[in-house]
This record gives sequence, C-alpha cells and structure tokens, in this order.
Amino acid sequence: MNTHRERQTVSFEQLEALLRDIFLAHGTSTNVAAILARNCASAERDAAHSHGVFRIPGYVSTLHSGWVDGRAVPLVEDVAAAFIQVDARNGFAQPALAAAAPLAVAKTRDAGSCVVGIHGSHHFGALWLDVEPFAEQGLVALSVVNSMAVVVPHGATKPVFGTNPMAFATPRDGHLPLVFDQATSAMAHGDIKIAAREGRLVPDGIGVARNGQPTRDPKAILEGGALLPFGGHKGSSLALMIEILAAALTGGRFSFEVDWSAHPGAQTPCTGQCVILIDPAKAGSLLGFTQRVERLIATLHDAGQDRLPGDRRHAARARAAREGIALDTHTWNELNAYAEAPGRPTS
Amino acid sequence: MNTHRERQTVSFEQLEALLRDIFLAHGTSTNVAAILARNCASAERDAAHSHGVFRIPGYVSTLHSGWVDGRAVPLVEDVAAAFIQVDARNGFAQPALAAAAPLAVAKTRDAGSCVVGIHGSHHFGALWLDVEPFAEQGLVALSVVNSMAVVVPHGATKPVFGTNPMAFATPRDGHLPLVFDQATSAMAHGDIKIAAREGRLVPDGIGVARNGQPTRDPKAILEGGALLPFGGHKGSSLALMIEILAAALTGGRFSFEVDWSAHPGAQTPCTGQCVILIDPAKAGSLLGFTQRVERLIATLHDAGQDRLPGDRRHAARARAAREGIALDTHTWNELNAYAEAPGRPTS
Repeated sequence: MNTHRERQTVSFEQLEALLRDIFLAHGTSTNVAAILARNCASAERDAAHSHGVFRIPGYVSTLHSGWVDGRAVPLVEDVAAAFIQVDARNGFAQPALAAAAPLAVAKTRDAGSCVVGIHGSHHFGALWLDVEPFAEQGLVALSVVNSMAVVVPHGATKPVFGTNPMAFATPRDGHLPLVFDQATSAMAHGDIKIAAREGRLVPDGIGVARNGQPTRDPKAILEGGALLPFGGHKGSSLALMIEILAAALTGGRFSFEVDWSAHPGAQTPCTGQCVILIDPAKAGSLLGFTQRVERLIATLHDAGQDRLPGDRRHAARARAAREGIALDTHTWNELNAYAEAPGRPTS
Repeated sequence: MNTHRERQTVSFEQLEALLRDIFLAHGTSTNVAAILARNCASAERDAAHSHGVFRIPGYVSTLHSGWVDGRAVPLVEDVAAAFIQVDARNGFAQPALAAAAPLAVAKTRDAGSCVVGIHGSHHFGALWLDVEPFAEQGLVALSVVNSMAVVVPHGATKPVFGTNPMAFATPRDGHLPLVFDQATSAMAHGDIKIAAREGRLVPDGIGVARNGQPTRDPKAILEGGALLPFGGHKGSSLALMIEILAAALTGGRFSFEVDWSAHPGAQTPCTGQCVILIDPAKAGSLLGFTQRVERLIATLHDAGQDRLPGDRRHAARARAAREGIALDTHTWNELNAYAEAPGRPTS
C-alpha cells in the first residue's frame, strides 16, 4: 500500500455515489450502477482492497469492450419449491442475485432450504458480499463461483479451473455474521494482481510460469503462467466441485470455456454461480442455533484462536464508520476522472 | 499391508454375511447389522482399508461399552418441503440416513433441493458411501460430518475440531458417479491409526504431540497429541463450517462436546451429519447435466490429470468383482472369532 502518498478520507456514501457515477458514465443501467457501486464501496470499506476500487479500471475496460451487458435485465425463474434459476443475460452476477434474493429468502423460510443457480453472469466482486446479507436475515448461506482457467488441477500440467472461491456465512447471536470467503487457488487472483502492481514476490507453492516451472514472480504467473490449488489434491477436488456446482448445475460456462479474445480489454469472467441457502430455524429456533454458534466461537477463543474469519473486515468496517474510508489522493482523482469522462481513461 | 502373510479371497457377499453376523453377535438389531455390514464390506471391497474391516474391533468395543445403541430406531421428521430432521437416537448414522433416504430423494426430485440434518448419530464409516447412492439415483450430494476434538484450529493451541470430512458425489453420463471424500484434517484419523499399527512415520505438517510440538510419530499424535487442518487457515475455515452445518444446524454435539469417558472402549463419536441434495434435472435435464460433467472430465484428462477422485476405489471395486476381496488369513480368522463369540475377543 502506498502509505507514503497523500491520503483522502471519504464517507461510504461519498464513495458509493462516485462509483455509481462511474458505472453510469460507462454505460450501465441505473439499477446495475447502484448494485455494483454498493458492492465495490463495501469491499473498500471493509479493507478488502483486492475487490474494492482497485477493480474499477477492470470494470470500465470490460464495459467498453462490449463483453458484458451493463444494462442486462436478469430473468428469474421459479423452478420448484427449493430451486431458482437465474439467467443473468450476459450481465453482472450481483444484479442477477439481487433480482432473485427476495424470492430465495421466502422459499428458504418456507421450504427450509433453496438453491439459486445463476448462469450467463459476470462475477468481478467479492463473494462474501453475496452471502453476508442472507446471514443478516437469519439464513445460513454458501456460495461458489467459477471464473477462468488460471489454476492447474492437481496432477495436471495445464490450467483448467478458475480460482473458484467458496463463501460461507452464518448468523450469530448479538454479533455480525460469521463469514469466510476463500479461493480454492493457493492465492486469490486479485492478490496476485496487487502483488504484481506493488512489485512484491509471492510465497512458494502459489504458482507456475509459462513453462510450468514454479515461480514467485506474480507477473510470470499472470502472463502465461498459472496458479496452483491450495492444499494439493484436496483444494483441487474442491475446485472441481465448484466447476460442477457453479457451471454444470446452473447452465453456465466452465472456466476453461471463457473466451473473450474477440473483446480486448475484457476482464470479467462470464460463467455461473450457485448459492445454497438453509433456514436454521427449521431444526429448532434461530436463537437456539445462534446460541450454539456462539458456544463454538467461545470455545475457539478459549483454545487460542484470537481472530475468526471475517473479523478483520468487520474491524475495518467499524473503523470506516468512525473515521471514513481512506484512499490515496491519486486514486481518488483517478476515480473522479473515470466518473467525468465517458471515454476510457488511460491510467 | 502385511503382504507377506497368507491371504484369503472372499466374495463381497461372504464378507457382508460375516460382518452381519458380527454385528448381530454384538447386540445390534437386524436392520442395523445389515446396513453396517454392507457399509463396511463396501469400503473393504473398494480398498478403502481405513474404513473397512479394520474398523470392526472399534465397532465391537463401542457396542460393548454401552456408548452406542445398536438397536436404535431413528426418528425421521418431515419438517418442510426441503428439510428433513432425523434423530438417530444415539444409534449409528448410516441407519438414520437410510431411514430418511427415500423421503429425501422424493423431496429433492420435487423441490429441487433438500437438506437432511441428522443428530444423535455415531459415524464410524466412510462418508463417500453416504453420498454415492444419491448420485446413482441422479442427484448431486454433499455431506459433512463432525467427529471428536482432534484437530487444532489454525492459530489455536488446543484441539477443537474433528477431522470433519466432506464428501461430494455427482452423476456422470455412462460412468459410475464422480465421488470424493476428504478430511479437513491434514490426514484422516483412520490413516493415522493405520500408520501407527504399521509402525510408519507420517509426513511433516500432519500433527503435533502432546506438548504442541510438531511430530511425525502417529502414536504421539493419537495419544494426547493432535492433528492440523489441511491447507492452513483455509482448511481450518472448512472444518469450522462443518461444525456449524453438522452440529449447530442439526442439533448434534460439537466435536469438542463428545465425552465418552464413562464408557471405556467407546470409539464412535456421537455428533451430527448434514446432507445437501440437489436435483440437477431442475436446471434442464439430467442428461444435459451429465454430458456437461463429461466435458469437464474430458478436459481434465486432456490437461494431464490421469486420475480423478474415486477412480482408485472404482478400480478396486472392479477387481473385487472379478477376483474377490483379498484379506489376510489372520484377519479373516479374527473376524470369524468376532462372529462366533458373543463376548469381546482380545486380539
């Protein structure tokens, strides 16, 4: 992080409004702009920098490439008591999920569980932002999304899988939801990009160069190289499961089928996403469930695990509420330029 | 494996019948004996030795300890369109799942998905055997089960989690289902036990001794030591999710709540299990789905991944069908002794 640079502090609402203006200036509908702006500002607020304003140039470049439809109106199909299918119609994934969410919550409360299968969707945001709102409404949520072929399966020599993250959220009693979000690759793609931008090496075991040899150079991984799964064959099996749930099950593209070669500048994989929702009240009461979760968390603390998944994001969120969101001034000016110029700024 | 010993070849049916006799001789009901015998013989047939006849002394010892009810009749509650709750009533998990399975399949075909939450259940078998039959019926199945506190969470100093495996199965087109089953610990408990029995060291990064120091001695891990999660904080987060899904959600015990100190000889953790079923036909057709899975698998083979999860088990199954199941004669004689003597043999 460029801590030596001059910094600017903005409120969440200021950042959200500026990001909305950017999306609108580059061709999205009002609804899509509102959803993506809130999503991206939330990631920045929670210090999830790899999915915050860092992503704006990629969004803009993709919108200009014609690869994504920033005005797509998703088609939500009520298939069965516990199954919703959504055609994102080559638009972003977040508006597709938002379109299905009220029905998904109602079905889950009624039936006890529900699967939402989204296809034709571009996911370029943080996955935990998709599950946390369901936990805020008292549901347990699990989501997986596939991306583009950048991960070499265990035992293979060529990339097939995406970084294929899995995000999980559960309600707690008297606390913000417990949420985790983790790539099945040894490192998230966004973190590799940030390391490349900052000129840092990545640890051993993260990726290979174009020639298949292990490398610590993030640029070599990004330019013709590939990532490895986390945890050897086990992470690889999870990535495989995620291709099946997010693509085969939804009607979306596999990661290795993403071909944006006709759209220079495109950066958002168009694949599929699966969300599994469960109503924990069905096995007793929501309070009974959340009290049990608290007992588990207290036991983890007693055993010496100080930090739970999501704690750092929630701390950043509280800090942002008190002090605002800090951005370096160069970035803030760049964002303002994106909002003003309808063309594609060169940065 | 004691390949230098004299070996005996038996058919699946012979082995299954002998195991049924053993369970009956040690106090289970006819139904429980039939289900556990089929389960254990299937693991042995598929060369999953850590969950095959190797488990029989543990089953017998647990039955004699009074910790498990081998005659329990599970209570299946039809809670909602896509939610089933099962009280295993301190019996084994497999009869509880078997009691719910026909309703679970019907609900999943009707509603598109279904969650089965089981509590008060003793799971001592291979988890993939719980999901594969659903895939044989055209459903996608995911199951998780927690066990007993033998895994130290990432960043903690004391064990809290079980080995908490996750098993996944999907139908294929013209092939046996694709199935994987993996512990969230760096090694499965059964494999540690086998290493201890055979006097082998385990690799680095698998476990710690009683004093918290890393060790490669499986006996030190089993006797007062603990396992580590696979893949660092990511495997640890999965283990945490599995405690929530298998215990908090079902009404079962957390792994750290298992206390069999009043039942010397008990070896089967009494916790909970969660099964999530999805009907892939709801997003189109079963054939369309399985053909997409075949495309993914063909791509993995093209990328150099020769062996898929479950391939080794299916190869062993085919070999057993041709040649029978090979057991060393000492083991075969021991099993026969278990079936004949109603008391607890010393071996």
